[in-house]
Amino acid sequence: MARTIGIIGLGHVGITTAFNMITKGIADTLVIFDKDEDLAEAESYDLTDALGGLSTYTKIIHNDYAALKDADVVVFCAGDISAILGGDRTSEIRTTKQAIVEVLPQLKASGFHGVLIDISNPCDVATTYWSENLGLPQNQIIGTGTALDTYRMRRAVAKVVNVNVADVRGFNMGEHGESQFTAWSTVRVNNKPITEIKTLDLDALSEAARLGGWKIFNKKHYTAFGIATIAMELTEAICSDAKRIFPVSCFDPDYGVCVGHPATIGAQGVVDNPPMALTAAEKAKYDATAKTIQHNLATMKATEVQA
Amino acid sequence: MARTIGIIGLGHVGITTAFNMITKGIADTLVIFDKDEDLAEAESYDLTDALGGLSTYTKIIHNDYAALKDADVVVFCAGDISAILGGDRTSEIRTTKQAIVEVLPQLKASGFHGVLIDISNPCDVATTYWSENLGLPQNQIIGTGTALDTYRMRRAVAKVVNVNVADVRGFNMGEHGESQFTAWSTVRVNNKPITEIKTLDLDALSEAARLGGWKIFNKKHYTAFGIATIAMELTEAICSDAKRIFPVSCFDPDYGVCVGHPATIGAQGVVDNPPMALTAAEKAKYDATAKTIQHNLATMKATEVQA
Amino acid sequence: MARTIGIIGLGHVGITTAFNMITKGIADTLVIFDKDEDLAEAESYDLTDALGGLSTYTKIIHNDYAALKDADVVVFCAGDISAILGGDRTSEIRTTKQAIVEVLPQLKASGFHGVLIDISNPCDVATTYWSENLGLPQNQIIGTGTALDTYRMRRAVAKVVNVNVADVRGFNMGEHGESQFTAWSTVRVNNKPITEIKTLDLDALSEAARLGGWKIFNKKHYTAFGIATIAMELTEAICSDAKRIFPVSCFDPDYGVCVGHPATIGAQGVVDNPPMALTAAEKAKYDATAKTIQHNLATMKATEVQA
Amino acid sequence: MARTIGIIGLGHVGITTAFNMITKGIADTLVIFDKDEDLAEAESYDLTDALGGLSTYTKIIHNDYAALKDADVVVFCAGDISAILGGDRTSEIRTTKQAIVEVLPQLKASGFHGVLIDISNPCDVATTYWSENLGLPQNQIIGTGTALDTYRMRRAVAKVVNVNVADVRGFNMGEHGESQFTAWSTVRVNNKPITEIKTLDLDALSEAARLGGWKIFNKKHYTAFGIATIAMELTEAICSDAKRIFPVSCFDPDYGVCVGHPATIGAQGVVDNPPMALTAAEKAKYDATAKTIQHNLATMKATEVQA
Repeated sequence: MARTIGIIGLGHVGITTAFNMITKGIADTLVIFDKDEDLAEAESYDLTDALGGLSTYTKIIHNDYAALKDADVVVFCAGDISAILGGDRTSEIRTTKQAIVEVLPQLKASGFHGVLIDISNPCDVATTYWSENLGLPQNQIIGTGTALDTYRMRRAVAKVVNVNVADVRGFNMGEHGESQFTAWSTVRVNNKPITEIKTLDLDALSEAARLGGWKIFNKKHYTAFGIATIAMELTEAICSDAKRIFPVSCFDPDYGVCVGHPATIGAQGVVDNPPMALTAAEKAKYDATAKTIQHNLATMKATEVQA
Repeated sequence: MARTIGIIGLGHVGITTAFNMITKGIADTLVIFDKDEDLAEAESYDLTDALGGLSTYTKIIHNDYAALKDADVVVFCAGDISAILGGDRTSEIRTTKQAIVEVLPQLKASGFHGVLIDISNPCDVATTYWSENLGLPQNQIIGTGTALDTYRMRRAVAKVVNVNVADVRGFNMGEHGESQFTAWSTVRVNNKPITEIKTLDLDALSEAARLGGWKIFNKKHYTAFGIATIAMELTEAICSDAKRIFPVSCFDPDYGVCVGHPATIGAQGVVDNPPMALTAAEKAKYDATAKTIQHNLATMKATEVQA
Repeated sequence: MARTIGIIGLGHVGITTAFNMITKGIADTLVIFDKDEDLAEAESYDLTDALGGLSTYTKIIHNDYAALKDADVVVFCAGDISAILGGDRTSEIRTTKQAIVEVLPQLKASGFHGVLIDISNPCDVATTYWSENLGLPQNQIIGTGTALDTYRMRRAVAKVVNVNVADVRGFNMGEHGESQFTAWSTVRVNNKPITEIKTLDLDALSEAARLGGWKIFNKKHYTAFGIATIAMELTEAICSDAKRIFPVSCFDPDYGVCVGHPATIGAQGVVDNPPMALTAAEKAKYDATAKTIQHNLATMKATEVQA
Repeated sequence: MARTIGIIGLGHVGITTAFNMITKGIADTLVIFDKDEDLAEAESYDLTDALGGLSTYTKIIHNDYAALKDADVVVFCAGDISAILGGDRTSEIRTTKQAIVEVLPQLKASGFHGVLIDISNPCDVATTYWSENLGLPQNQIIGTGTALDTYRMRRAVAKVVNVNVADVRGFNMGEHGESQFTAWSTVRVNNKPITEIKTLDLDALSEAARLGGWKIFNKKHYTAFGIATIAMELTEAICSDAKRIFPVSCFDPDYGVCVGHPATIGAQGVVDNPPMALTAAEKAKYDATAKTIQHNLATMKATEVQA
């Protein structure tokens, strides 16, 4: 059956993700949405122009929720990133909730029953909010969460020890925000525990990884290429039922919210949560970051938006 | 040998082209440039983040002209597209000339001896200007020219007659600007001359194709995905010496300027100019549009910029 | 939904096609079949080994017809090519009919309702036989037919006039066998009718194209890479509903059999048969080749095989 | 600069590797060789046929050593696999040495100065032999060695614990032959040491991995898809100077021969040998397998072949 992918919200992240999907030939049908109908139409033209030079074909449709009925994946990227220019992702709570509340009834009405990937921030509370309100099984709701932070940690480590990023493994966990942490006990370089490389200052590396996004963000006011690549990888894993591990934001029953941690991704979204052997210190960090998400979720719930 | 690609100017077009190059695995080394050093650095971080999810590897370097010494291709996308918000591409003449003049001595000094692809507008005069001043053989200077207009014509035709864009062939020619035209005598749909489809209003189609870019531009204030795909196709054709036909802006000795017309692209840039059997009316249009480019080139030469 | 592709018959063509499908990341689930169960298992292991180095994932299953229930495409490659070592493809009639008759009840019982692509020879009669017996709408049965002959004609022309094969357009038509012909009136080189290139000997080119396969076949005793690429292209066009033109063997109501001619391929298989403006001489050749197929079909029907 | 890849020996492995290179668009020029000139020509036709359906272009040349002068990579796959139908890879020693001795002077004379990848068996002694006789720096000579055994180990583990092969890390080491071993201390599943999964019988898994190849081989009499994928991955890593870790056969100064172990692969071939923290038992196995290779190398040196 044709792979149908929806992308809601055509800011830099949404449209870069859309371009990536057609360039890699992943989507047979791509349905893009923006509340600015003219923008959605303009982007559909710009994306369609690219088909002239691709060997694969993607049908591009805009602002048609009915087309999502049998979609495999919907990527939600709406919101207004300028809300966080002050430097705190949680200040986006209101704008993101507003965007979700506007989209939710239409997405429900479409009969969509695939996997929702939330990129909007604050990612973990937005993902939890979707999970509580979309009416789909919890495992079908995923946030990109610390997948991007993990890419950045891997990039920072790869640079310092001069290896390929593919040979750095391990995970960042927790909130996709200030309280996240690198679970260094999980990180391996060239298949060796990074903790055994005594010359490395892991705190400095953590900081480099954490600041990576800000470095880009403060200059560009958005970051797009890492996250668009993650959305592509997750979509491929879902469409092909790959059962691959990604550090994503998904439901943690111990805390009742979505928290970034390694999960096995397949056709049904999260198909397993392999247990992690964190150190005591890492467990404490995880506990703290999960509580931050709980707190932010309460804030989101209390935030009033227009129906 | 490693494929080295340079991209100068990191506006929407430049950075989308850069992302496309690494996503498709075309560049072994990608050297990106922007006169805003911090932006170039930020983009190099954002692009590098994407490597975490790709199976190919690209070394990403920024603002280092020495790295272009043996580059296969340099894509020039500098300039300020906001200069044409009024609707006329020629108003970009000053900003583009300024950008070229700033880059030219550094590019020359690098020892670069590959193929330069100009995306900056007004494309044909910018390409001619490069051709006259870079000190490389004329055939190594190409402008994307009417390649994008051709994509748009093909897209417009494909939509109207409900076929795949791959089954629409033919060319737009002339200035990448208001005086361009579709050479309908070259256009075939499903391998049949479009002129035999009597129900089609070719003038209306021409208009649709011409307005396509403006539709996107007026809403987004830039267009990126079509042109980034063309830059990728041309780069692949050059690196693999494919000797494939593209409607690009390249030197036409009859007019002494670069004009958009079909050319065979290979390792040395333009390796052939297959003769076109245009109708008398099309020849007249070509003559008119070439003269427009001559006029605009004179304007560019007369325009003073800061050394 | 996941793309499921079946491949029946794991000779050189079948297994090369299978490898191509996973290498290009087209199939989410690949179901391979061979009447030699051990071979099917061995190939599933060899193919699965490749997953260790791919960024996409494909679930590989063998000899399980139930898995074809919702398959998008089934490629039928069974038969015994050694039957034609004498040089005449029709001598394969018995072995191919035997293979079809063995597979048919199992494929029907699976509930398969996608598009069947026949590669087995003699292709046109095998395709017609499938069409008459599988119980699916005629448009869902396609033979690769003269698609391969067309590739070879384009390759032969490209070599002689020194252009890229992408810039040679046009079609071979009729039986995928000795009576096929190049419809030179449809062939264009660099968008120019080949008939206008007066220096070319089209009869010699026809012969070169026709002999191309034999040249490979006589040495290797099979040909695989061209046909595997065509199977991949057709599968992509079907999965993405691309509505692209391919010269394939499909039903021609004027003759009551499947004959190689340009058809528009989409999700439902053949979605259109764009009219061709052949010359009188080409029409006569088409008539003759179609009658050859009618004759061969009668032979196949009369051939007795084991139930 | 264009990427030029040579493939010497067009048995199943060589030609599958060649097809993979053009299908993935990795090679700009592909030079294929076989001592059977007619076969090389036939394969060049079959491969060229595939270009009709690819969006990338590869120039295909056969049996022309001069074209290897600036080649990035030469893959050596000559030899006669039927020599090992008895079940012992070392019986191939004579036929492989014969093939090397025939190719060596021509390869040297070509001026080739890139990286040689040996796939021929017995891989480690063949690689060592190349290393001692080709006149290139040792780091530019690589054998695929236990890369394939590693793929198979990962595949066997992935199946037993039901995870994606991408989430199984670790290495097989030693001789690409009977004395190889899985270094279980290096293997991680979902980022957890496999040794902590108490329910697994690692000896049985080792056996499954070791027998994997024989299972395929005994039925097909060759294995091709895993190894062709490895050749592609190594070639990409070399062309893009990826500095990625692969378990390949390369020079181990402690033993004076090439032995399969993790090495960092970049433009210069082996650019680093990251130290491995093997257990004492694993070190003993490594010592034993390295001595087997030393013994086999002595046999190869003593084997007389025709000059």
